[in-house]
Amino acid sequence: MRAFDVIRAKRDGERLTDGQLRWVLDGYVAGQVPDYQMAALVMAIYLNGMDARELSVWTTAMMESGRVMDLSAVPGIKVDKHSTGGVGDKVSLPLAPLVAACGVPVPMISGRGLGHTGGTLDKLESIPGFSVNLSADDYARLVGEIGLCLIGQTEDLVPADRKLYALRDVTATVASIPLIASSIMSKKMAEGIDALVLDVKVGSGAFMKTEADARTLAETMVGIGREMGREVVARLTGMHQPLGRMVGNALEVVESIQILKGKGPADTVEVVIELGAEMLVLGGVADDLAAGRTRIEAARSDGSGLDKFRQLVMAQGGTADCLDNLPSAPDRTTFTAQRAGFVSAIDTEGVGVAGLLLGAGRETKESTIDPAVGLEVLAKIGDRVDAGQPLVEIHHRGPARLDDALRRLGDAYVIADEAPAAQDLLIARITGSLPA
Amino acid sequence: MRAFDVIRAKRDGERLTDGQLRWVLDGYVAGQVPDYQMAALVMAIYLNGMDARELSVWTTAMMESGRVMDLSAVPGIKVDKHSTGGVGDKVSLPLAPLVAACGVPVPMISGRGLGHTGGTLDKLESIPGFSVNLSADDYARLVGEIGLCLIGQTEDLVPADRKLYALRDVTATVASIPLIASSIMSKKMAEGIDALVLDVKVGSGAFMKTEADARTLAETMVGIGREMGREVVARLTGMHQPLGRMVGNALEVVESIQILKGKGPADTVEVVIELGAEMLVLGGVADDLAAGRTRIEAARSDGSGLDKFRQLVMAQGGTADCLDNLPSAPDRTTFTAQRAGFVSAIDTEGVGVAGLLLGAGRETKESTIDPAVGLEVLAKIGDRVDAGQPLVEIHHRGPARLDDALRRLGDAYVIADEAPAAQDLLIARITGSLPA
Repeated sequence: MRAFDVIRAKRDGERLTDGQLRWVLDGYVAGQVPDYQMAALVMAIYLNGMDARELSVWTTAMMESGRVMDLSAVPGIKVDKHSTGGVGDKVSLPLAPLVAACGVPVPMISGRGLGHTGGTLDKLESIPGFSVNLSADDYARLVGEIGLCLIGQTEDLVPADRKLYALRDVTATVASIPLIASSIMSKKMAEGIDALVLDVKVGSGAFMKTEADARTLAETMVGIGREMGREVVARLTGMHQPLGRMVGNALEVVESIQILKGKGPADTVEVVIELGAEMLVLGGVADDLAAGRTRIEAARSDGSGLDKFRQLVMAQGGTADCLDNLPSAPDRTTFTAQRAGFVSAIDTEGVGVAGLLLGAGRETKESTIDPAVGLEVLAKIGDRVDAGQPLVEIHHRGPARLDDALRRLGDAYVIADEAPAAQDLLIARITGSLPA
Repeated sequence: MRAFDVIRAKRDGERLTDGQLRWVLDGYVAGQVPDYQMAALVMAIYLNGMDARELSVWTTAMMESGRVMDLSAVPGIKVDKHSTGGVGDKVSLPLAPLVAACGVPVPMISGRGLGHTGGTLDKLESIPGFSVNLSADDYARLVGEIGLCLIGQTEDLVPADRKLYALRDVTATVASIPLIASSIMSKKMAEGIDALVLDVKVGSGAFMKTEADARTLAETMVGIGREMGREVVARLTGMHQPLGRMVGNALEVVESIQILKGKGPADTVEVVIELGAEMLVLGGVADDLAAGRTRIEAARSDGSGLDKFRQLVMAQGGTADCLDNLPSAPDRTTFTAQRAGFVSAIDTEGVGVAGLLLGAGRETKESTIDPAVGLEVLAKIGDRVDAGQPLVEIHHRGPARLDDALRRLGDAYVIADEAPAAQDLLIARITGSLPA
């Protein structure tokens, strides 16, 4: 086989064979197919696509390029949730312990913040002592013993994705739905899970700005899961504004604890309950979504979710009082409305960048995160505000980048005379794949 | 500027700016843009194309990546001819001296055989002593002194094309009309010429198998020439069967001398006269094609073309009697018709490969050419043949690859009961570029 022929076939819009896909990906990881040939191939894939069969073979080959976690010793149907990323999206933090408390094991391998979006690992690391760097053995043991474990990707997990992503990043081939879908699914399928719930974010704070793109991505990932013999359900949820009230690492842990205590902002609670219900149905402990919702609600009100979260924190390096000693920023500045009216739109990516500039995210790969800083969103879309009314409370450390952050917020908030039309938070539920 | 943004723009079907095109090509030649980024870009160009403006800027940047020959000291309008390559296409050998004998200087930098097609340099080198490796100074001097010079590409001529071609060769991006056109035109425009006649071959022995593709390539090259301020005329000519009777290096020199003596096969003579007439019109020594044809005919019958050829050979290292001592293969084998009927089609690429296998071309980059071997085509399309009648006389050296060559010829010749429809040799004349 020759890489040339694989490139030529995809260039001409042909379907690649299982053998071609495996050979070229394995060869790339082994260094036998050079970067320049893979670059030509991924550009051809970007422009000509891959069908469901190609995608499942490609994703399987990606997954099998490294270690695949073995959780077969853990009884029950293991279910994870993955979000495509947003601003203030702390859903995993309350969701995983709630679902585990209801009896469904949750093995979750998460990522760090990417661009303007936050990352579950960064949020967890704002908890003093919490370690996301556990061995594969400890991961499997914790899923078995306490029903959940939240770690970062180990070096030996899906090395093909790391190598390919670095190449796509410099060849303008990241924003390809088949390549995004196979990247996500290869990592999720390597976790050792049986089923998966996908939270595909849509809107100004999401990577998919339109519902059409989000739907295509969701259908593509559901299709890959199905071809690989896993149950996958996707929900399209709104990212037209930050989710909940808190944006920032320790701040989002605080809000997650509120949710686990039966409180917290309505929008985030709604997403947690919906995704939790999906996971309970997939995990076989609820017959339908209504029953699932009821059980998640119960785990919030009876404290079993919070207990599970404390158990997790202790098991991964936290101390008994660490949740009472979360880092907190020394300074507060208020961003206020320039005029009276209705909050009609929020450039949510701009809000995410404001938080990033303060230190809640990474400006470059070398940046370190300040877990304490962030934003408290006081006014959301549809709220009526007066001139001078606080819209965002900024948690910061000194004057660094504060003006930049204020300018970003000023650009992000749109205030109009008319109340905006309501936008759905739960946009769609996708259980079928794209037509072949 | 970032290569990323250039790739992204072409990926999305945008027109690249002059600055982007120059920057990315210069950066590639300088090693600042790596192979993998250029590979992604050329695949995006392959799939999304380039318009006339982009192509002229790209071609100019390619040309200016190295030395551009300066023939400004040579009086007159310098005109060259380029063929896209075929089997038995020895046109340059009689054409250049005929045109030079009519008073139009012909600076010609040629290539070697590529795949199944022959190359002018290889043919010239079958003449004992003839050197195609002259310095740029000698090249300019000879064009001035004797009105023509035929050399190979020097190392410092269009280095961007060499580097880019090597990359395209392994990334399945060779067969792109914009990239083919810019590659050809950058090399021709670096010769120091004022005008150019293109012979775009069409048919089973050409790289362009269909008239539509050949026409697009011709229009693209004419457009590049026009944007670069040079007069360019393209002729589409038939390559449905080998041109003339001889295929092979020394054999084609023999046939070229016959043409210069007023003899030779009708088809080759017709192409030489047409292209010669175009060159004389462009060179300003004939008012129209009819006048040009008459002058070329005269240079064939009065011996001035042959004299010019002898002058060229002597100037480039040949001796007085070298044309009488061309290499000749020791062995002859006849390929005969299996059945009676009409020669209805010839897979001309197969004929070229048969010659290549015998040593007339290169099977690998390392192969050396045997100047003496080749094929003498005794029956052409439309000829009525009897069973057992010789179709091709094979000039070879011993039994090596002879069976392979015979098998290729057997596959190439199609004999049918019905006489085939006549096919045009002079298919089209293209003087306008593609619509922008």
